[in-house]
Amino acid sequence: MAQEWHNHYDAQVRKVSSAITPIISIDRKASRPLHQQIYDEYRSAILGGTLRPGQTVPSTRGLASELGVSRIPVLTAYAQLLAEGYFQSRVGSGTTISLALPSPGILKKSPNARVPSRRPITNHSALPGAIKNQPWLRRWGAFGVGQVAFEKFPFHMWNRLVTRHCRLVSAKDLDYGDPMGLKNLRDAIAVYLGTTRGVRCSAEQIMIVSGSQQALDICSRVLLEPGSRVWMEEPGYRFARNLLVLNGCVIVPVPVDHEGLNVAAGVRLDGKARAALVTPSHQYPLGVTMSASRRMQLLDWAERSQSWILEDDYDSDYRYESMPISSLQGLDRNSRVVYIGTFSKVVFPSLRLGYIVIPEDLVERFQACRVAMDIGPTTFTQAVMGDFIREGHFSRHIRRMRSLYNERRKALVESLGDEIPGLEITGTQAGMHLCTIREGIQDREIADRAAHANLWLVPLSPSYAGKAVRQGFILGFGSTSVEEMPGAVRKLRAALRDVKRRIL
Amino acid sequence: MAQEWHNHYDAQVRKVSSAITPIISIDRKASRPLHQQIYDEYRSAILGGTLRPGQTVPSTRGLASELGVSRIPVLTAYAQLLAEGYFQSRVGSGTTISLALPSPGILKKSPNARVPSRRPITNHSALPGAIKNQPWLRRWGAFGVGQVAFEKFPFHMWNRLVTRHCRLVSAKDLDYGDPMGLKNLRDAIAVYLGTTRGVRCSAEQIMIVSGSQQALDICSRVLLEPGSRVWMEEPGYRFARNLLVLNGCVIVPVPVDHEGLNVAAGVRLDGKARAALVTPSHQYPLGVTMSASRRMQLLDWAERSQSWILEDDYDSDYRYESMPISSLQGLDRNSRVVYIGTFSKVVFPSLRLGYIVIPEDLVERFQACRVAMDIGPTTFTQAVMGDFIREGHFSRHIRRMRSLYNERRKALVESLGDEIPGLEITGTQAGMHLCTIREGIQDREIADRAAHANLWLVPLSPSYAGKAVRQGFILGFGSTSVEEMPGAVRKLRAALRDVKRRIL
Repeated sequence: MAQEWHNHYDAQVRKVSSAITPIISIDRKASRPLHQQIYDEYRSAILGGTLRPGQTVPSTRGLASELGVSRIPVLTAYAQLLAEGYFQSRVGSGTTISLALPSPGILKKSPNARVPSRRPITNHSALPGAIKNQPWLRRWGAFGVGQVAFEKFPFHMWNRLVTRHCRLVSAKDLDYGDPMGLKNLRDAIAVYLGTTRGVRCSAEQIMIVSGSQQALDICSRVLLEPGSRVWMEEPGYRFARNLLVLNGCVIVPVPVDHEGLNVAAGVRLDGKARAALVTPSHQYPLGVTMSASRRMQLLDWAERSQSWILEDDYDSDYRYESMPISSLQGLDRNSRVVYIGTFSKVVFPSLRLGYIVIPEDLVERFQACRVAMDIGPTTFTQAVMGDFIREGHFSRHIRRMRSLYNERRKALVESLGDEIPGLEITGTQAGMHLCTIREGIQDREIADRAAHANLWLVPLSPSYAGKAVRQGFILGFGSTSVEEMPGAVRKLRAALRDVKRRIL
Repeated sequence: MAQEWHNHYDAQVRKVSSAITPIISIDRKASRPLHQQIYDEYRSAILGGTLRPGQTVPSTRGLASELGVSRIPVLTAYAQLLAEGYFQSRVGSGTTISLALPSPGILKKSPNARVPSRRPITNHSALPGAIKNQPWLRRWGAFGVGQVAFEKFPFHMWNRLVTRHCRLVSAKDLDYGDPMGLKNLRDAIAVYLGTTRGVRCSAEQIMIVSGSQQALDICSRVLLEPGSRVWMEEPGYRFARNLLVLNGCVIVPVPVDHEGLNVAAGVRLDGKARAALVTPSHQYPLGVTMSASRRMQLLDWAERSQSWILEDDYDSDYRYESMPISSLQGLDRNSRVVYIGTFSKVVFPSLRLGYIVIPEDLVERFQACRVAMDIGPTTFTQAVMGDFIREGHFSRHIRRMRSLYNERRKALVESLGDEIPGLEITGTQAGMHLCTIREGIQDREIADRAAHANLWLVPLSPSYAGKAVRQGFILGFGSTSVEEMPGAVRKLRAALRDVKRRIL
């Protein structure tokens, strides 16, 4: 009987060399026979849920060799597991954990789900807004903020670079790379920033990061203490605020007007703040560009008060009317500015690549911090991105997207004028979003409801750290074509009207 | 004359559509003529170093359109810049910033290099050991720790998966992904960990991170306050210690013996510590495996003192003699263990992929923290890794590497016995490194000198948070073939002997 099972079994397990060997503990000195031990281990792993229905089991030969035992006890145990229905074997697909097990309840409930009541967790990690409570985030469709014209991305060219790098990859590329990032990419970024943003730096000052959030994280860990007071634009970028809160900083909300951050107001509120975080190219969410005189005031303040300026040069590549103004970093004469940029908006978000331009004297400090945090960036995407820039695809793509987003922005503004007259639009003609103001509404509630109708409005009020002065919506136009715009705006009008009716 | 230049110039700039447009500010209302403004802007950008020698300049047509001016002033300015040697033009390569500029000193020294004396920087980011002072880190050659058998990596298969994903990539893959990571990969990891490590979890509890350092960072931000006391193995993993220090934790060094972390000693030192960080599968650096009874003691302590256990399951895939012992996470019945793993050692380091298994009740908290830190992982490598596991390449690769590393370890132990008799080797037959003890030497000094002879020894003493009890070297054997081993060990013997002579 056992032999029969063995033969039957063996016919099924020819193709299982790629199965993962489970953790089976046996004790050669125990009185219990080996086959019984193997059987018991499998049975409890299956009932305990660590082995899952449908999962392939390793060959008897493989397991015997792993355990350092003869094949006979393994064959016997497998035969029993098959006979009792814990295993199943099908021609072609080998032997697996049975898909039809007696008590699926046992399988699902893991025994360590018992959670004690007292669990010490940090207060600073209690960040507002789990994603599931903010349906307007990260959704696909009209007005999604941070979404690019995905369909216009030069996939073909990008994939050619990816494939080329696959061919070129050598053993050394698999090892840990420079924690600052790939030299080639840093060189390309230094040239790009000097040329387009007036940033003064060498490639040695550039650190590649996984995006502007990580950039801000590193800056705050090197420059800011728990308890440090930081100016933030009010309203401002909520994710950046969350990060500063996570690091124990105290937010000083400084109002934004049509010239950007109101420096004089900041000085009145807290002239001795340790740092100011700003988005001067295209303020998030209001969309204004910081004027040249405000830039000089801010730099002047930083010098007098020995403070840091964290310049998140958000959306700097897309401006449609005004002349470019040099970055704060390029105007700074006191090494007070740390410059932050990202490829999320100009290439694509899931690439997770950005950069920091670090004051020369702090490069080593930033690097040590980065190594402690995550050793450094992944090599492969950096190599591809470096070529994408150096071979000119990057600037060509930006130029193409600039005219595309300009058209999309115009279409949105025009439709808003047609459909929702009197709606105020703030900010300059730049970037991939605009901000609409509508007083006397509950923007969160409307956004919540609109999301259920597949319309992704980011409400303005959560952008305020303090009391929300204005209500409205941040509308992304990057991923909505000119043709689709009027329809999307009509849906927006309906969402607004629907609420009015409910209020009445 | 101007027209002549224009014609000459135009002949050169046919191919510059991919040049980056520099930041040129003009003022239409100014009395200075436009061509003079354009000339001045270029000149100061070149002298200021934001435009670099050899860099391609945009076409006159492109710049004129960017600036919204007619082409004439641009042509005039370009002609003047060419005539004065700021630009150069060569047949075939278009017009560039001149490679032979008068004063390269001016170009290099950026005006914001002036660093004020008072710069507020955090103390906790003053981490020990810049990489440049530790030449034994990240080098290529014999005994490099953390280096894998790069040449045996199945490049061909990996590249096939990469290329396939290039073809399959859709617009949606470019958008931000799930901050927890790709569902496919998390499913594969859940099955893998349940099977091989006895980890009890669902895919929903798994978060993809960029490696074990980031995993530890997230854990410590959610679970540990600045000032929290944390047990660490003594000697232990220095990079992990740096991270905890960066986060303001207080290290409680708990001695490691032949059974792993000495729990009783830990209780005597600080029974109320908030957490314990351990590497139970293959302790770094001593290489011991934590015994089953110590595991139970540790879990028992955690339950009694309401403490967390951070289980870094380092090197768990490579054991060559002993039976596997279930992970602490799998033995835990109180949701006290956070399990950390990485693909750096089993796939390759520059992939930057690892994972955390989070207690069910803390998943949301971890996720919010992660979003604040860096939004989430990059999608592409996750997709490739998911397929690599699901199609069986991963477990095949591990199995192959297990027997390869076993051979390499044996060869190293044998050569050490032949060449350096009496050298003590600690730990179990596992992993990709072993630790040798030699009392009465200066291991840092020897490692420093050996590095200059292309031999990469990691000294043992910096692994101690307190006074170094023992001296010796951590020797990686992952990237050294059996054939090269005797030669590498002879070099090691020479390095040790050389020092003895210097001491005498």
